[in-house]
Amino acid sequence: MRDVTATDQTAQTPDQVLDDALKALAERSYFSRYPESPSPRVYGENAAPEGLSAYEAHLGKPFEGLAGAFDGSSVGDEVSPYGPTLGVAYPHLDVDAAMQAASTAIPAWRDAGARKRATVLVEALDALNERSFEIGNAVHHTSGQPFVMAFQAGAPQAQDRGLEAVAAAYAEQARVPESVTWEKPGKGEPLRMRKDYRIVPRGVALVVGCNTFPTWNAYPGIFASLATGNAVVVKPHPRAILPLAMTVETLQKTLQDNGFDPQLVQLAPEADGEGLAKTLAERDEVKIIDYTGGPGFGGWLEREGAARGQQVYTEKAGVNTVVVDSTDNLKAMLGNLAFSLSLYTGQMCTTPQNIYLPKGGIDTDEGHVSFEEFGQKLGGAIGRLTGDDEKAVEILGATVNDDVRSRAGSLASIAADAGGSVVADSREVTHPKYPDAVVRTPGLVGVDVAARDAYTTEQFGPVTFLIGTDSTQQSLDTFAETVRRHGAMTASVYSTDEGVLDAARDAAVDAGVALSENLLGQVFVNQTAAFSDYHGTGANPAANSAYSDSAFVAGRFRVITARRHV
Amino acid sequence: MRDVTATDQTAQTPDQVLDDALKALAERSYFSRYPESPSPRVYGENAAPEGLSAYEAHLGKPFEGLAGAFDGSSVGDEVSPYGPTLGVAYPHLDVDAAMQAASTAIPAWRDAGARKRATVLVEALDALNERSFEIGNAVHHTSGQPFVMAFQAGAPQAQDRGLEAVAAAYAEQARVPESVTWEKPGKGEPLRMRKDYRIVPRGVALVVGCNTFPTWNAYPGIFASLATGNAVVVKPHPRAILPLAMTVETLQKTLQDNGFDPQLVQLAPEADGEGLAKTLAERDEVKIIDYTGGPGFGGWLEREGAARGQQVYTEKAGVNTVVVDSTDNLKAMLGNLAFSLSLYTGQMCTTPQNIYLPKGGIDTDEGHVSFEEFGQKLGGAIGRLTGDDEKAVEILGATVNDDVRSRAGSLASIAADAGGSVVADSREVTHPKYPDAVVRTPGLVGVDVAARDAYTTEQFGPVTFLIGTDSTQQSLDTFAETVRRHGAMTASVYSTDEGVLDAARDAAVDAGVALSENLLGQVFVNQTAAFSDYHGTGANPAANSAYSDSAFVAGRFRVITARRHV
Repeated sequence: MRDVTATDQTAQTPDQVLDDALKALAERSYFSRYPESPSPRVYGENAAPEGLSAYEAHLGKPFEGLAGAFDGSSVGDEVSPYGPTLGVAYPHLDVDAAMQAASTAIPAWRDAGARKRATVLVEALDALNERSFEIGNAVHHTSGQPFVMAFQAGAPQAQDRGLEAVAAAYAEQARVPESVTWEKPGKGEPLRMRKDYRIVPRGVALVVGCNTFPTWNAYPGIFASLATGNAVVVKPHPRAILPLAMTVETLQKTLQDNGFDPQLVQLAPEADGEGLAKTLAERDEVKIIDYTGGPGFGGWLEREGAARGQQVYTEKAGVNTVVVDSTDNLKAMLGNLAFSLSLYTGQMCTTPQNIYLPKGGIDTDEGHVSFEEFGQKLGGAIGRLTGDDEKAVEILGATVNDDVRSRAGSLASIAADAGGSVVADSREVTHPKYPDAVVRTPGLVGVDVAARDAYTTEQFGPVTFLIGTDSTQQSLDTFAETVRRHGAMTASVYSTDEGVLDAARDAAVDAGVALSENLLGQVFVNQTAAFSDYHGTGANPAANSAYSDSAFVAGRFRVITARRHV
Repeated sequence: MRDVTATDQTAQTPDQVLDDALKALAERSYFSRYPESPSPRVYGENAAPEGLSAYEAHLGKPFEGLAGAFDGSSVGDEVSPYGPTLGVAYPHLDVDAAMQAASTAIPAWRDAGARKRATVLVEALDALNERSFEIGNAVHHTSGQPFVMAFQAGAPQAQDRGLEAVAAAYAEQARVPESVTWEKPGKGEPLRMRKDYRIVPRGVALVVGCNTFPTWNAYPGIFASLATGNAVVVKPHPRAILPLAMTVETLQKTLQDNGFDPQLVQLAPEADGEGLAKTLAERDEVKIIDYTGGPGFGGWLEREGAARGQQVYTEKAGVNTVVVDSTDNLKAMLGNLAFSLSLYTGQMCTTPQNIYLPKGGIDTDEGHVSFEEFGQKLGGAIGRLTGDDEKAVEILGATVNDDVRSRAGSLASIAADAGGSVVADSREVTHPKYPDAVVRTPGLVGVDVAARDAYTTEQFGPVTFLIGTDSTQQSLDTFAETVRRHGAMTASVYSTDEGVLDAARDAAVDAGVALSENLLGQVFVNQTAAFSDYHGTGANPAANSAYSDSAFVAGRFRVITARRHV
């Protein structure tokens, strides 16, 4: 089915793939194993229609083929943000039996060693890549992402992040020798001992998925925990189960094909409001938690997890920031920003929320632009990008929940509360194919830097603040201070002044967030590239971890030494 | 003063030392930079008397020469476990000003880069090595360790652990390139970006020292945090301030000599009961905590630290275990065990507390030995080792606090509570030089495996349980289960049966503790060697960290990327 000649990488053995990935991780330059283009030239002529059919074949039926210890009930009431009901029923775990099964599966996986685990996981990622269109459709209809984005972020880019986690985990484990002879010189005979180092997993790892990026935000944790020998229980968001069900199914099959217990990975779907994540997090067997979601439950997991000796990796919420000082390409800057704000209706954890610029305006290649003019021009750029409903939905996707919809509909009151004004309202777009989808364009609210309460709270969805400051220096100071306190996944700066860029880099270091500078083309602040850009830093309250630095993998395993004289 | 020819290592540059240490860490075989022998042939003829004089010069005086933001008051009421009052008064920090000073000191240290930091810290360790006899005396008179042990564990071995932490931290940072060009192929021109990766510290690191190993247990955290660019505040145990005051003084001098702010390291002595560790832990500036001490406060630090986004490394308490199945050298086994139990009166976090053996006895090269005979013979071995008071104190040292003394004096009631019997009582030894020192030999209490409540609680000090089981299998099962639940820093096994040794290795993996097998000579289960043996594993409740695996260093820094088109 797949056009093998299009990417000669596919002919590699898993060992070769791992070695390439290790090299790429060390170099941090461009690397991707899984092509992000959904073009038929890459994935084959039939890949798209077959993937869609495969997706549709799941609808309105029980999801069968998962291995697991089930309690006989089923859950699942996913409804696409585009309207259709998915109608897939998933078997519900018997938690006691599932924990037992996971624990039983661990020893053989642990004893297989880091390299074997890594190569099996490469196989699983390759197998997931074969299902990219099927999974892309599932992500599209659970997250509401536009299709191309759902395909890219939900399949190949998530797979690359998974491979990165496998490589990072392997690199860390490979530093521990299997066995050494230790010889301590002494007065007489030297003391000689043989020391064997066994890498052991922590236990069962719980991965709590989110609604907006069900695979992309789950793969790093799933693959890092498996690569270090743990068993994984995947608890998807109740409205985004299907992409992770497909993922678990593929992982189970690859594990089984390689002689391992498929129950090393289990799917733990829940009914909306069941609270299964908490139940699972409180299990003694669970030693690692990866969580993407709101700060309330995330903070509870961190606190209680520490008390239970768990390693907890969280990505919560923040206030992503752009500092605009000046530009030599106003049009390109506005275009880049408009796209960043519009993509998936601002429902990315990386979408800018706060744009700081001086109340006195900015210097540009088109002359001085006042604060008000900047707002109008940015609103205009968004309008041009999203003016055609049919094209707009391919960028905006659909709103994922009522919270986002309500926010999109109340810009005037958000502005009023902040003592500001609506600069560009969020427009309702009619989806040409899905009339039930609620599609909105991003809205802009102008406020004064004094309106801290408004812009230091995450406004998830299509709300962006244009924040008028006294100077770029105040913009940078406020940026650093608010991010240090409230967190951020991303930041960017526009300036023609090297001194300002230097100051912005220092502010980003103070804030603990990565910085993109003068993005004018086809790279957007919301996007990070596996093997090169860290997603998150762990250095501010938005996330205590980064995909994938060494801290993201080092806590997932331990080393047990056995020593004896020889 | 130091005999340079005795160790040609001293002629190396800090860069060479770092490279050797990195190689040693990767190989995990024998490596030591700082000679553990206090012999005049190694450290020079005058080193011992000069070190003693240097120590004595501190007594009865204010400790001067520390840089720091002080509040004008002074604290310090250290009394040697051997009797003498130290009478050293230490300046007390002004916490607000100290945090400000630490934060101010960070940027230049951060921007110096990982390699520069590592080599400066090697210099500091070399300078600490020059003070080994002085520090050894200070450890001797605060911990109560016998002098040779205080010298070895308190000075060269602590320095080696410090160097190991520096190497581990550097290795982890060195994996992140400083700058790369990222080039993504596309339809037209490739997308090209320059990406700069800046390693940034977490902030201020708090190191909470303990009474029994003031330097050895503090150096890994101090040096790992400094090596990753953090500032460090060292809060010593109120009864063991002097060794860390000397340490901070030397670090400050080396930092200053290299052009850095000495307040990158500050000493935070407190009066007994002041609760300064809690005050410091609750500061916003504090992002890392290293703690050695009781599980109550340690658990609080873990829980509250997670809520505050701190990285918390703890070593708390556990029940160290020996499983005795059989031996082909009864005499050597008993000698090795007797020494392990006697060294520093069982006041090591690594001293065995629980010895499991079958109620039916064990097979040995001297024939079958019953459970009762084993107890008598082990008691006899302890008696022979500690029978001569003058020699005994050089192994036992002095009891460190009333808690230990009270336990040593109440073996009969401990035995009665556990439904067991005293097999060998703890004997009071008269110190020939220090009549006020309370010196005790280890006591043995025989109990049945059913008496879980007794032996699953840490009995810090000279109390060891001989636990009668139905079989070696039950010994191993109970070992794994109790350690998984209650933690352990060490475990060992004696058996002539390869099958039992294999089963013991599996039990140790289940328990999450390192295993020593059939120790008969001059290696003791309580001792770990830097660069080769991990101290702790992080895999059981006794400690959430290990000196020094990658998890011990990876969480102490973050990476901040700045990217832009080129």
